[in-house]
Amino acid sequence: MHEIKFAVLGTGGIGRRTLEYATAKDGLTPVAACDRHGVAVDHGGLDVNELLAATEGNIASDGGVTAVKQSGETSGVAASSQAEPTETPIADIIAESDGIDAVLIALPNLEHDFIPRVADRFAEAEYDGVLVDVLKRSRVIDMLDDRIDSFNDAGITFVCGAGATPGLLTGAAALAAQSFVDIESVEIWWGVGLKSGYEDNRGTVREDIAHLDGYDTETARSMSDAEIEQVIDEHDGRLEFTDMEHADDVLLERAGICDAEDVTVGGILDARSDEKPTTTTVRVTGTTFDGERGTNTFQLDDNTSMEANVNGPALGYLQAGVRRNRNGEYGVFGPAELMPGF
Amino acid sequence: MHEIKFAVLGTGGIGRRTLEYATAKDGLTPVAACDRHGVAVDHGGLDVNELLAATEGNIASDGGVTAVKQSGETSGVAASSQAEPTETPIADIIAESDGIDAVLIALPNLEHDFIPRVADRFAEAEYDGVLVDVLKRSRVIDMLDDRIDSFNDAGITFVCGAGATPGLLTGAAALAAQSFVDIESVEIWWGVGLKSGYEDNRGTVREDIAHLDGYDTETARSMSDAEIEQVIDEHDGRLEFTDMEHADDVLLERAGICDAEDVTVGGILDARSDEKPTTTTVRVTGTTFDGERGTNTFQLDDNTSMEANVNGPALGYLQAGVRRNRNGEYGVFGPAELMPGF
Repeated sequence: MHEIKFAVLGTGGIGRRTLEYATAKDGLTPVAACDRHGVAVDHGGLDVNELLAATEGNIASDGGVTAVKQSGETSGVAASSQAEPTETPIADIIAESDGIDAVLIALPNLEHDFIPRVADRFAEAEYDGVLVDVLKRSRVIDMLDDRIDSFNDAGITFVCGAGATPGLLTGAAALAAQSFVDIESVEIWWGVGLKSGYEDNRGTVREDIAHLDGYDTETARSMSDAEIEQVIDEHDGRLEFTDMEHADDVLLERAGICDAEDVTVGGILDARSDEKPTTTTVRVTGTTFDGERGTNTFQLDDNTSMEANVNGPALGYLQAGVRRNRNGEYGVFGPAELMPGF
Repeated sequence: MHEIKFAVLGTGGIGRRTLEYATAKDGLTPVAACDRHGVAVDHGGLDVNELLAATEGNIASDGGVTAVKQSGETSGVAASSQAEPTETPIADIIAESDGIDAVLIALPNLEHDFIPRVADRFAEAEYDGVLVDVLKRSRVIDMLDDRIDSFNDAGITFVCGAGATPGLLTGAAALAAQSFVDIESVEIWWGVGLKSGYEDNRGTVREDIAHLDGYDTETARSMSDAEIEQVIDEHDGRLEFTDMEHADDVLLERAGICDAEDVTVGGILDARSDEKPTTTTVRVTGTTFDGERGTNTFQLDDNTSMEANVNGPALGYLQAGVRRNRNGEYGVFGPAELMPGF
C-alpha cells in the first residue's frame, strides 16, 4: 500500500502516544496535529519528537525539569516550533485535508454527539478520507449511522471504536468466532488498573462511571471532579461494571458475528492500583459445523495496560480503513468489520 | 463489497466443506468446482446441495444408503447433474476464470511444487483474481515468492496458508501482538484428534510425518499407506512435533509482526482419538510501549476440530484477498498480512 498521511485531533494521552507509535511503523506519516489552542501541519511529515516535547513540556532545553503537561494559549501544540496558535484548530486541519488520508479523532468525549458533529464538519467540507475514533458507546454508533448518506456523498470511511475496547477485543471475538457456524455468546470482561495513568484518563473514568447503577452519561458529565473522586472513594477505588452499554454488541452484530443481545460486556476498574484487578478476557461460545459446542478464549496479560492496548489496534484499523476508502467503500465500519471478511 | 464468485479446485474434505460453508455466508457464490474427473460450472451459482450429494454419493434417491465417497471417471463431481466429465479439470476452470473472482486450491498436496505449478497455469492464462491455498510449509511460500513478477503481471493476489494453521493461528498471533511494541516470541502449539476424520485427512497426516525426526517431505511422500500406519503404531497413535518447519514463522515475519526465528511451532496429533491430546494455544510474549513484559494468549476449545477451524478463516481470508485484488494489490500474502494493518 502507498504511504498513509494522517492527522491527530487532540494531543492527550491517546493522541500523543499514537504520534509516537506511528514513528515505529512503516508507511504511516503524521502530517498534522492540533489541540485546543494550536495546530501543526507539515505535509512532508511532522517532527514528532519536537512536537511531543512541546505538548509535554519536557523540552530538552529546559534543563531537566520534570515533564509537566502544558495548556493554555501559548502552550501545548502551540509551543511547538512547527505550530501556530489558532482558535479554530479543527477548521485548520480541515483546510489542509486534501493531503490527509486519515484523521484520528482523539478528542475528549465532551458531549455525546461531539464526535459525530466533528464528523459533520469534515463531511460538509467534502473530505474524502478516513475518520477514526476510539469511542465505546453504543448510541454514538447510531448517531454515526444517521450520517451514512453524508459520509457516502463526501467519500468518508468512518471507523468507530478502534481502540482497546471495542477495537482490539471485538477483533479478537471476530477471530475466535471462526471455529463456529453459530455463535451462542460473546463475553467481554476487562480489567484496568489506572493508578499512575489516572490523570491522563479522567475522561475514561468519568465515562465509565456513567455505566454504574444510578448514573448515566448526563449525570456523569455534570459531576465535579470532587464528586467523581467521592464515587471512587465509596467503592474503595474499585468500580465493577456488568451489562455495560458498550458498543461491542452493536459492532459485532454489524460484522455479522452474532446478535447484539448475545454480547455481554463488563469489567473492573481499579483507580488506586496499576495492577489489573481482573484479567481481560474474551470468551466466544458457539457450535461448530460438526455440532460440537465449545468456547474459544483470548486473554491479555495483566501486565499490558489499557494504554498499551489502544495504539496498535487504532493504527491497524486506521490502515484498514484507508484500504476500504481507496476501494470506494464509504460509511461507518466497526473494527470487527475490518477483520478479514470473517 | 460486491458479490464474490469463487471456484473450488478439489472436492475432498476441505473443498466440500467450503462449498457448504459458503452457502451460509452473504455475498459469496460458488460458481465452479472440480475434481480429477469432473468439472461443474454455473456462473449464476452452483446448486451446492446437489453437488455435495454427488461427490459424497449420498444422493437422496439412493434409499438411505450410508454415504460413501465416490471416485472414478463417472463418479465424484462428474456424477453431478451440473457437471461434465473431463480429463482437464483445471484447464476447464481456467477457461471460465473471467467470471471468477477467487479460486480456493483445495487439492491434495501431491508434490512440493504442485500448488505453485497450478498457480503458474493461472498466471500464464493472465487470470486477474485471487488464488487461495491452505498449505503449511515454509518452503512453498518461497516458491510462490519466486513467482511474484508473474503474479503481478497477470493481476493475481495469492493468499497462502489460509486454513486453521497458519491461517487462524497466525491471525490470532497478529492480533495478540497488538499490546506490544517489541515481540520476543510467538509460540504456536496445536492439538489434533483425528480418529474419525482420519480417512479424509490422510494427506495431512503424511505431511505431518515429514516433520518427525528422521523424515522429510520426500521420504514421507514415498511411504506406502502401510508404512504410514506403522509409524503411527510405533507412536501408539500419538505423534508429537517440536520445532516444525511450518510457514507460520515466515508469514509472521512478512507481516511485520516479529522475526521468523522468534516463532516456534509444535503440537500433538492423535490418530486414534477424536479428543484433542492437548489444547491449541497461541502465546505472544512482548514488551509494551511502557516497558512491561507480558504474554497474551489465544486458546481454541478442545471441542473444535481441525476441520471446524479451516473453513471460516479460509473464506474470510479469501474475501480479504478479493478486496486487495480489486484494490490493485497483487503478489503473495499470508493471513497475518490480511489482518487490519497491524
